[in-house]
Amino acid sequence: MQIVRDTNTASRLSQLWRLHNLRIALVPTMGFLHEGHLSLIRLAKRHADRVMVSIFVNPTQFGPNEDLASYPRDFARDEQLCRQEGVDAVFYPTPATMYADDHSTWVNEDSLSSGLCGASRPGHFRGVCTVVLKLFNISGCHLAVFGRKDAQQALIIQRMVRDLNIPVQLLLAPLVREKDGLALSSRNNYLSPDERQNALSIYRGLQEADAKYKAGCRDAEQLIEILRRHISGAGGKIDYISVVSQDSLQAVNRIDSPALLALAAYFGKTRLIDNIFLD
Amino acid sequence: MQIVRDTNTASRLSQLWRLHNLRIALVPTMGFLHEGHLSLIRLAKRHADRVMVSIFVNPTQFGPNEDLASYPRDFARDEQLCRQEGVDAVFYPTPATMYADDHSTWVNEDSLSSGLCGASRPGHFRGVCTVVLKLFNISGCHLAVFGRKDAQQALIIQRMVRDLNIPVQLLLAPLVREKDGLALSSRNNYLSPDERQNALSIYRGLQEADAKYKAGCRDAEQLIEILRRHISGAGGKIDYISVVSQDSLQAVNRIDSPALLALAAYFGKTRLIDNIFLD
Repeated sequence: MQIVRDTNTASRLSQLWRLHNLRIALVPTMGFLHEGHLSLIRLAKRHADRVMVSIFVNPTQFGPNEDLASYPRDFARDEQLCRQEGVDAVFYPTPATMYADDHSTWVNEDSLSSGLCGASRPGHFRGVCTVVLKLFNISGCHLAVFGRKDAQQALIIQRMVRDLNIPVQLLLAPLVREKDGLALSSRNNYLSPDERQNALSIYRGLQEADAKYKAGCRDAEQLIEILRRHISGAGGKIDYISVVSQDSLQAVNRIDSPALLALAAYFGKTRLIDNIFLD
Repeated sequence: MQIVRDTNTASRLSQLWRLHNLRIALVPTMGFLHEGHLSLIRLAKRHADRVMVSIFVNPTQFGPNEDLASYPRDFARDEQLCRQEGVDAVFYPTPATMYADDHSTWVNEDSLSSGLCGASRPGHFRGVCTVVLKLFNISGCHLAVFGRKDAQQALIIQRMVRDLNIPVQLLLAPLVREKDGLALSSRNNYLSPDERQNALSIYRGLQEADAKYKAGCRDAEQLIEILRRHISGAGGKIDYISVVSQDSLQAVNRIDSPALLALAAYFGKTRLIDNIFLD
């Protein structure tokens, strides 16, 4: 497994792979890998000849009051996990090789990005779109894998790929949960044992809402209210709970086309996101 | 020579070329081709195995009060010229194949774009960067050719390619002038005979400023004043005349590193741009 630290070396590697007609998959991550990431890597391996995992805590997608400095990092462990999964190359760039001092070009998706996490995190998806396009170009990937845990991100990347005619196939992988239902996230690391216990209210709420939807309820507010009750009841501070169209990410009152029930909530200082697709 | 009207067919063609290890050059144009464009095509042919010319009057780079509707078009003539030059494919898309109704992803360069034409034409370079990136992706080009006539555009595209790690080599071609010195532009077509005569003041001013620079003058204001005198004296309405650093496109007072003397002026209703590089 190769570990590549600068963009030029990564580009040369991908050019070499392409010269040999190898199909390249990119798995973009911010590191501190968990089973969710590993499921993306395994999906990538099934669809490509070479898998490049990028590990980069991208500064441009963090707001000034967010957790860029404290975001958990453990490259040695990430490296070991990638080796175990048979990853071909880890792209582990420094911020300096990714962003010139006078970097001034940004990719903005300005429709799907406006609500949900985009409303709470101004500039976040600009940073995400920009770094993802950069990683596509550097890795020369034919396909890239994203998790449905970050549902809004996945749908925005899909939109970017369509709008900019980016020749990359996207694979969206299912959200992965702990045995007790907590969605896997590197940020779970921040939770105290009590907070972690209280955070299970998210999953319980999603399960009850999903059951209600499957039983025929199409009223968004009723599903939202279930979540609100569970999360607030467990002491969580709700950032947003929304039912949105999968196409436009605009809020819907009645669910009569594929929708997404998505939420963000704080347990202590930790912001967690979760969702279910209502197809 | 193939004429391709939709993005998927263009992508398939470029994939086929790439499969045969052919080096692809893109020459992006808005059509109504003149000798300036043809010089770009000839440069492209010297550096590539296959040349694709795109002809697309990109609506997203025109402001609401600009000349999108009246911009000159003559596809039959353009097609003939491309054939004569040995172009391999003309990509002549409809607006509908280029922009979905709910298109929402844009590329913004927000430093070099702020002055010069960017100040007079808000949103212009957003439209340019977005369509150029789309055309790069659709054409699968290895290299692309831009003219120095649109100096700011060329430098912004260079910046975009650097910032987004776009795997496309850029060739910048010299500005081409009529025998009497008028910079070639499809918009020259708008000029009345009198306006065209008056517009030669731009070239006379640039010549005098260039001579003064070559004689050792490094004071930007003196060069600007020469242009102002020529253009205003001939009845031109000045939009801007600036001496800027080639790196940052920020105005400079003293020219002690590579600079650009650039201007935009109206003759009648026609906005003309011109420039000289002060290297």
